[in-house]
Amino acid sequence: MIFASDNAGPIHPSVMEAVMAANTYAMPYGNDPISDAARDGIRTLFAAPEASVHLVATGTAANALALAALCNPWEAVFCHRVAHVEEDEGGAPEFYTGGAKLRLVDGADGKMTPDALRTAMTATGGSVHSVQRGPVTITNITELGTVYSVDEITALCDVAHAFGSQVHLDGARFANACAALGCTPAQMTWEAGVDAVTFGGTKNGCMGVEAVIFFNPAKAWELEMRRKRGGHLWSKYKFLSAQMQAYVTDDLWLTMAQAANARCAELAAGLRDVPGARVAHDPAGNMIFADLPRAAHARAIAAGARYYLFGADEGPDDELVRCRLVCDWSCTSDAVQQALTLWRG
Amino acid sequence: MIFASDNAGPIHPSVMEAVMAANTYAMPYGNDPISDAARDGIRTLFAAPEASVHLVATGTAANALALAALCNPWEAVFCHRVAHVEEDEGGAPEFYTGGAKLRLVDGADGKMTPDALRTAMTATGGSVHSVQRGPVTITNITELGTVYSVDEITALCDVAHAFGSQVHLDGARFANACAALGCTPAQMTWEAGVDAVTFGGTKNGCMGVEAVIFFNPAKAWELEMRRKRGGHLWSKYKFLSAQMQAYVTDDLWLTMAQAANARCAELAAGLRDVPGARVAHDPAGNMIFADLPRAAHARAIAAGARYYLFGADEGPDDELVRCRLVCDWSCTSDAVQQALTLWRG
Amino acid sequence: MIFASDNAGPIHPSVMEAVMAANTYAMPYGNDPISDAARDGIRTLFAAPEASVHLVATGTAANALALAALCNPWEAVFCHRVAHVEEDEGGAPEFYTGGAKLRLVDGADGKMTPDALRTAMTATGGSVHSVQRGPVTITNITELGTVYSVDEITALCDVAHAFGSQVHLDGARFANACAALGCTPAQMTWEAGVDAVTFGGTKNGCMGVEAVIFFNPAKAWELEMRRKRGGHLWSKYKFLSAQMQAYVTDDLWLTMAQAANARCAELAAGLRDVPGARVAHDPAGNMIFADLPRAAHARAIAAGARYYLFGADEGPDDELVRCRLVCDWSCTSDAVQQALTLWRG
Amino acid sequence: MIFASDNAGPIHPSVMEAVMAANTYAMPYGNDPISDAARDGIRTLFAAPEASVHLVATGTAANALALAALCNPWEAVFCHRVAHVEEDEGGAPEFYTGGAKLRLVDGADGKMTPDALRTAMTATGGSVHSVQRGPVTITNITELGTVYSVDEITALCDVAHAFGSQVHLDGARFANACAALGCTPAQMTWEAGVDAVTFGGTKNGCMGVEAVIFFNPAKAWELEMRRKRGGHLWSKYKFLSAQMQAYVTDDLWLTMAQAANARCAELAAGLRDVPGARVAHDPAGNMIFADLPRAAHARAIAAGARYYLFGADEGPDDELVRCRLVCDWSCTSDAVQQALTLWRG
Repeated sequence: MIFASDNAGPIHPSVMEAVMAANTYAMPYGNDPISDAARDGIRTLFAAPEASVHLVATGTAANALALAALCNPWEAVFCHRVAHVEEDEGGAPEFYTGGAKLRLVDGADGKMTPDALRTAMTATGGSVHSVQRGPVTITNITELGTVYSVDEITALCDVAHAFGSQVHLDGARFANACAALGCTPAQMTWEAGVDAVTFGGTKNGCMGVEAVIFFNPAKAWELEMRRKRGGHLWSKYKFLSAQMQAYVTDDLWLTMAQAANARCAELAAGLRDVPGARVAHDPAGNMIFADLPRAAHARAIAAGARYYLFGADEGPDDELVRCRLVCDWSCTSDAVQQALTLWRG
Repeated sequence: MIFASDNAGPIHPSVMEAVMAANTYAMPYGNDPISDAARDGIRTLFAAPEASVHLVATGTAANALALAALCNPWEAVFCHRVAHVEEDEGGAPEFYTGGAKLRLVDGADGKMTPDALRTAMTATGGSVHSVQRGPVTITNITELGTVYSVDEITALCDVAHAFGSQVHLDGARFANACAALGCTPAQMTWEAGVDAVTFGGTKNGCMGVEAVIFFNPAKAWELEMRRKRGGHLWSKYKFLSAQMQAYVTDDLWLTMAQAANARCAELAAGLRDVPGARVAHDPAGNMIFADLPRAAHARAIAAGARYYLFGADEGPDDELVRCRLVCDWSCTSDAVQQALTLWRG
Repeated sequence: MIFASDNAGPIHPSVMEAVMAANTYAMPYGNDPISDAARDGIRTLFAAPEASVHLVATGTAANALALAALCNPWEAVFCHRVAHVEEDEGGAPEFYTGGAKLRLVDGADGKMTPDALRTAMTATGGSVHSVQRGPVTITNITELGTVYSVDEITALCDVAHAFGSQVHLDGARFANACAALGCTPAQMTWEAGVDAVTFGGTKNGCMGVEAVIFFNPAKAWELEMRRKRGGHLWSKYKFLSAQMQAYVTDDLWLTMAQAANARCAELAAGLRDVPGARVAHDPAGNMIFADLPRAAHARAIAAGARYYLFGADEGPDDELVRCRLVCDWSCTSDAVQQALTLWRG
Repeated sequence: MIFASDNAGPIHPSVMEAVMAANTYAMPYGNDPISDAARDGIRTLFAAPEASVHLVATGTAANALALAALCNPWEAVFCHRVAHVEEDEGGAPEFYTGGAKLRLVDGADGKMTPDALRTAMTATGGSVHSVQRGPVTITNITELGTVYSVDEITALCDVAHAFGSQVHLDGARFANACAALGCTPAQMTWEAGVDAVTFGGTKNGCMGVEAVIFFNPAKAWELEMRRKRGGHLWSKYKFLSAQMQAYVTDDLWLTMAQAANARCAELAAGLRDVPGARVAHDPAGNMIFADLPRAAHARAIAAGARYYLFGADEGPDDELVRCRLVCDWSCTSDAVQQALTLWRG
């Protein structure tokens, strides 16, 4: 009953086996056959043979490096008000961009609307006194567990491009979004107008690996230098590559995300029968925000369930408390049903 | 016959087993029992129960974070002219410190002398027009394969402290230095006056883990924030901790370094019998710089030996070429003897 | 009829005379008697004999330097949503702080409320994933022409200090605020809890001079280094000092502000008689935001009036357009009456 | 007898008159006729009708902004070991470039040689582990009072351009160099291959104004944003422009430099007759480094002469002490002869 985060679970056995298999002599810094294969595997998966691909160990690093390469220091990055880059990265985007500003865009359910984005971009730039318009970054699956459709992504990219700005997609839960939409990686990214992607593995069964992908490779060398300078170039790079190589082999990335999404759908469905409970937003991937009666919540926690609570631990039994429930690839129906039983009381 | 780098070799089986054993559910970001154990293990190893300990995956990150916490942006870091922070980190120290300057100190065999350090520090600071004196960073084993004795470290720390500056030790090859000196980690660091350490695992049998250690924990929170902001806080932190925990258990760190140093000594001894060859500097750890006749070099490379060459690939057969030979924990006597046989011709 | 900005007008003759009188030999970088006198004059004016005082030529520089000395790079600065530091400084605070975030606080009429500030500060910080709480900066006269009372400043300082944060006051129009409140500089600053001030001269009859004042001089050397490093230390510093010295002599700063405020009050009063016009917010200093019928606006512009218009130049005659009207020390009643006549039509 | 610095002297009356004449209403931020005239005047002087021209108040700001626009953060700036940007700007180049490294090039008399520059540039860059090659910056008149000939500048530019790097010329004493060489501004800059210039006024009779000039205007907007963001955009910009406009009118810049250089030549000639004295380097502009017997030095100081001494104030009477003597436009033959008389004893 671990619904705390998709980074709390185990590595998939296939990924771990790839790591073990890579444990031999190899030239460092990505100059090895496994790394070649991982880069090629990603290019094939995205149907983007020219893309530049750069692996790092954390999503914060991937996002910050991508934004730094898309943004001048005197520009603003446009993101949703609750975006991970704004709320959960300790100022890494500001650090890597050399002090760019994050301009917060509103929108229900964690999703920017094209109109809100257009308004924010219109209000930015102009005279030399104002920071100028820089890139747009969108997250799919969003931070509230919802999903942007391909059409919605396209609409945001159209707005951004109309202003001459590029678009980054924070895909910490990229696989869950693809699984939810039933689309290909290409459809969700460059075909919709996305210029750069963080393709996440860490939350979806890997140890710690994310790919920064630029569909136009003109910035490849800049990204290499920025990564090195950020301390993110691994000498034993093959261990990043091995994870990623296993991840993109035989649709493992997608299979794991489908499993996680399915468990989450099961959770959402079951919550309808929990007296007093209600599911917030419109969960589409592997993450649910739900309001539970405090007594139900307390029963589950007491029995060993683990997930984040927003708000006070103490209070009236029937008060609703906001909980975040995340399923990873390893989550079982048993765990889901066990939790539902506890909440139902 | 892989002498290219100590980061070209495999992970030690005990480290790999620890990684596999950690592959279960755990709370993220270091809030797990393995991470507690790893931190405690390092504190015990350094006899420093109050030390703050922060794990990252690369040595460049560890050095840059440590220097950033020791240095104001308007200060200079003092390091040897061939220091890794100056030559091989792509400007990471400048990035993390917010633009501090590196002031290069001379000294034979990759070692700063106290006099040269004092001269450089005396020449820095003073009026507002000059950057001010910041920390000193020394590398042990040095970039040229030599070792600072404990007395030499103490002498440099005395100079630094006399100017009110703190001292960082870049221990990418910390274990090899300890093995060479036969001293304890405490003797080589805080007992000698060192304030902060990069305790390296990556080059010595780990996958990718370095500990930033501050003996005075006053900067602990700042380091946590700087690490997060640099994108170096792993969500699945347990996989960094598991490596480090295995590394400091049963003297594995030391045993591996002793093995690497022994093979290197065997190489150095054998090179005396290679006609025309000569060993540069005074190798003390697991790294040798040697001048070899080009023909000898060519024979070894043709037979599959791998190591770095400085200078041109082509030239007269009897011309000496400068080679760097590094042994890691996994290097065998057979490999050493095989290379020596090839060089002898 | 120049109401475009208080930086569009002339330098006061006394300031210009002081500049001319300073035109002789002097040691550079502030080591001269005029500079000593200017620093002392400010300390006396603020009844703050220990304060550190640093002159620069622009308000943006003054604000950015002050915030940089109050803020770590991983912290957030709290300011009003329409603060000059957010909207009009091209990202200078982010640049000088090394990438701090600006957290925007709401409040009617350009004024943060203590409750809104407390809410924003409560929502910031905590875990390592979030940027941490840094300083609060308030502007008086605000960007919307309103004034914080001494009690209101005190209440905001109390909130900030309760969180362990320091308070900066952006006093680009400091003199106009003092004139409006009838209080002393000390009452509006350190007696109310303000830790650092930008004391502006540029908008109030000087050529280009602002004083950064820290009531606790512990950061004096850091400010000197940051100023030099920012390229803001003048070699012929005496020409900054001469302006400031004249400015604080014989209450010139206050006299000029009183004149500007008086003209602005005359404007506001007169606007009541302009058919269809209305004054926004509650102008207290030397700046008014007013909605004027487009036809009235067009008449004034055609006759040579100069001020900023927000919104489209073209549209229906009776549509209200938002205008910003600023009076400086040199503004005359004639100019005011002439503009009112034109608007009245 | 003020030879301390060319920034210790007065403003030329023509410059001061221009400042006074500018004291009227004008639109801020450089949108005024005086600013247009100043920009055009510089373009005419440099025979560079397309150049972008940006005024700031200090030389440190001008140099740092120019280098920031020419350099990525992961690159190295090549400069002479004793360059002002390295020794006297408090780390401003590192701050504005976002942490670029300064690579120090040797050469006698403060002048880089093409060979030394080529060696330094060859040794920089290559792999991702090293910072990459960025711009070259040369100072004329150099920090040691010598002058680069047009041919020497051309040779350095050829080396830089061969590596794909651009060249900045720090012209804090640009006018003195032109006067010494008898060449035009164009000949010393873009005709020789220089890409960007700091054209200094502050040390040569102005209050505080330097022009950043880029012959290719492609970076004009970037420079505008970087200047604003650095806090260097004056609201009352006309007061910078007025100085510069007077400076470039009727060859005032050149006339003042010729006067300063002539006084310096007189000093140098007279020093030949000071027993025991010797002139270092080969003074070409308005600055001399000379070794004087301590007793001679002491006599002059006691009589009111002012100049910088390198080394200890106290010591044997006949010991030589290194002094720096600088003449500005206002220096008189009387002052020179008076000092020479005192030194001769």
